[in-house]
Amino acid sequence: MSNRIALDEGVAAAIEGLGGERPGHVFFVACGGSFSIMHPAKFMLDQHSSLASDLYNAAEFTSRAPRTLDARSLVILCSMTGTTKETTAAAEFARSRGARTIGMTVEAGSPLARACDHVVAFEAPYTTGVPIDAANSNYARIYQIVTELVRLFDGEDLTDRLLASLGSLQEAIDRADRSFAPLFDDYASRFASQDVVYTVASGASYGAAYSFAICVLMEMQWINSQAIHANEFFHGPFEVLDEERCFILLKGMDSTRALEERADTFLHRFGKQENILVLDAKTLDLEGIDPLFAGNLVPLIFFDTLWRFAHRIADLRQHEMLTARRYMKKIEY
Amino acid sequence: MSNRIALDEGVAAAIEGLGGERPGHVFFVACGGSFSIMHPAKFMLDQHSSLASDLYNAAEFTSRAPRTLDARSLVILCSMTGTTKETTAAAEFARSRGARTIGMTVEAGSPLARACDHVVAFEAPYTTGVPIDAANSNYARIYQIVTELVRLFDGEDLTDRLLASLGSLQEAIDRADRSFAPLFDDYASRFASQDVVYTVASGASYGAAYSFAICVLMEMQWINSQAIHANEFFHGPFEVLDEERCFILLKGMDSTRALEERADTFLHRFGKQENILVLDAKTLDLEGIDPLFAGNLVPLIFFDTLWRFAHRIADLRQHEMLTARRYMKKIEY
Repeated sequence: MSNRIALDEGVAAAIEGLGGERPGHVFFVACGGSFSIMHPAKFMLDQHSSLASDLYNAAEFTSRAPRTLDARSLVILCSMTGTTKETTAAAEFARSRGARTIGMTVEAGSPLARACDHVVAFEAPYTTGVPIDAANSNYARIYQIVTELVRLFDGEDLTDRLLASLGSLQEAIDRADRSFAPLFDDYASRFASQDVVYTVASGASYGAAYSFAICVLMEMQWINSQAIHANEFFHGPFEVLDEERCFILLKGMDSTRALEERADTFLHRFGKQENILVLDAKTLDLEGIDPLFAGNLVPLIFFDTLWRFAHRIADLRQHEMLTARRYMKKIEY
Repeated sequence: MSNRIALDEGVAAAIEGLGGERPGHVFFVACGGSFSIMHPAKFMLDQHSSLASDLYNAAEFTSRAPRTLDARSLVILCSMTGTTKETTAAAEFARSRGARTIGMTVEAGSPLARACDHVVAFEAPYTTGVPIDAANSNYARIYQIVTELVRLFDGEDLTDRLLASLGSLQEAIDRADRSFAPLFDDYASRFASQDVVYTVASGASYGAAYSFAICVLMEMQWINSQAIHANEFFHGPFEVLDEERCFILLKGMDSTRALEERADTFLHRFGKQENILVLDAKTLDLEGIDPLFAGNLVPLIFFDTLWRFAHRIADLRQHEMLTARRYMKKIEY
């Protein structure tokens, strides 16, 4: 009675396309929200593979032009719409160096898709407004790419366990949304009135903290923010903490959890309980998710459920999430 | 009449200690301000070497435990006082995996120095209060490590050109301090009254933007901040820009300069000139600095001169730079 999903066909074809040839280097390349998923992807690769990798904002990647980029490189890019110019340019640059490229996008006919050797399609709610199954999200696809790389080049087959876990993910997310709802009801009104809200995380969860800070708080709500790494917090940023300052802390299940726990203790020692919103993955029912992948998958739960918190804030601020923009897609730049 | 300095003895010994054996992977590991120099170090290595590398906050490194870390790895760590516990623990962790470690610190007898195979000493004004020559700074030392790695393992000898440039660096810094002084006089009063100030940069300058945001603005002045990557800026963060918001933009001389120029155009289009402080390296007299290394060395100029700006802000805020702390080194945590 497993909920195991099938390996994505796009992932299977992209991996097949490597022809068994071990990449000399893996690059994770994207911008903004799509860049945020490269953090957990690299985290998973780092822990399970001896493949060397880097993650770069797409324009940084192209203009930096790292010497490790060559014909033996594998470059994995992502853009939801496939129209992010910097990411398409990065794919073209990578191909000009002879590297193999995998483009992740919702739109199969998009510029990014056309610029890459292989396309891995995923789903995102923006196209239809209809909620998706997280098993079809960008995270779920890139994790499949990672475990397939591990299977081929590190001799450990984790893909089955990942696919089984992905089949149980959406239900875990739905349960989390329900269990966090009272917390969000409690915290939304205070956070909605803030000019500054920080997010804090480490390890596999850092990407979710980053996307919430830059894409949701800054872009969609015009609230000042920074995604603070849970240990970097103690080397400067913590001095802005007082009883008024609001923080969102993600406590995940990966091997860096102790860093987030230390930040939690400090935030509660000098901050006010009511201004420190903690999402603790240990409170969640993760039935069906393999403990091996819990650390990698809870960031999807954080990401999804934080959107619900954001919608509550947006309603209170009367600042519409998806259309209130000064610049993005409103003007040419 | 060259100002060429000598190769640092600690660097020479550490490189000699490699015995000509090519590292399988290089790790740059530190926390906070010392972590900030790892960005430009990796940038230089990326552009001149085919050695693969990663940079990690020290606690992230230890708890992530990347599989690429093994007996063939070279781990370069830095802590000014050498007492940063996470960094010493990272050195011990690296050695337990058989990796070779180089510890950069001001204090030769410090815990970090004792935990590493090789020690590279540098100077920082904190010990004596007396200004140092930038040729003896942490940046200058780590760049020498990088060019020596390039010489040994990529067959290109850049060390002489770097050493010649480092000999001219302090004079360039002194000239920059003088040339930026009127700009700082103009901007200090507006920035001193802000609750939020962002820094923006890319490439080799990102580390300087990061340290100014987290160590100076947040830690020393309790001003909310984030170091925004100049291209990531366009993928979310730019929505917080309005005519009131204050930004510091670093326009360097490295290959990512176009990203910073694009941010500059946008910041001036929708922000107010008087709230956008731009440090443009192209306005500087860089006599004696090899154009090959200008992009790598202007971040030291930015870093030094921004301290002067910070002191002006601190005076206006009556918030003492080096002692006004809530937590750091005031309490146990």
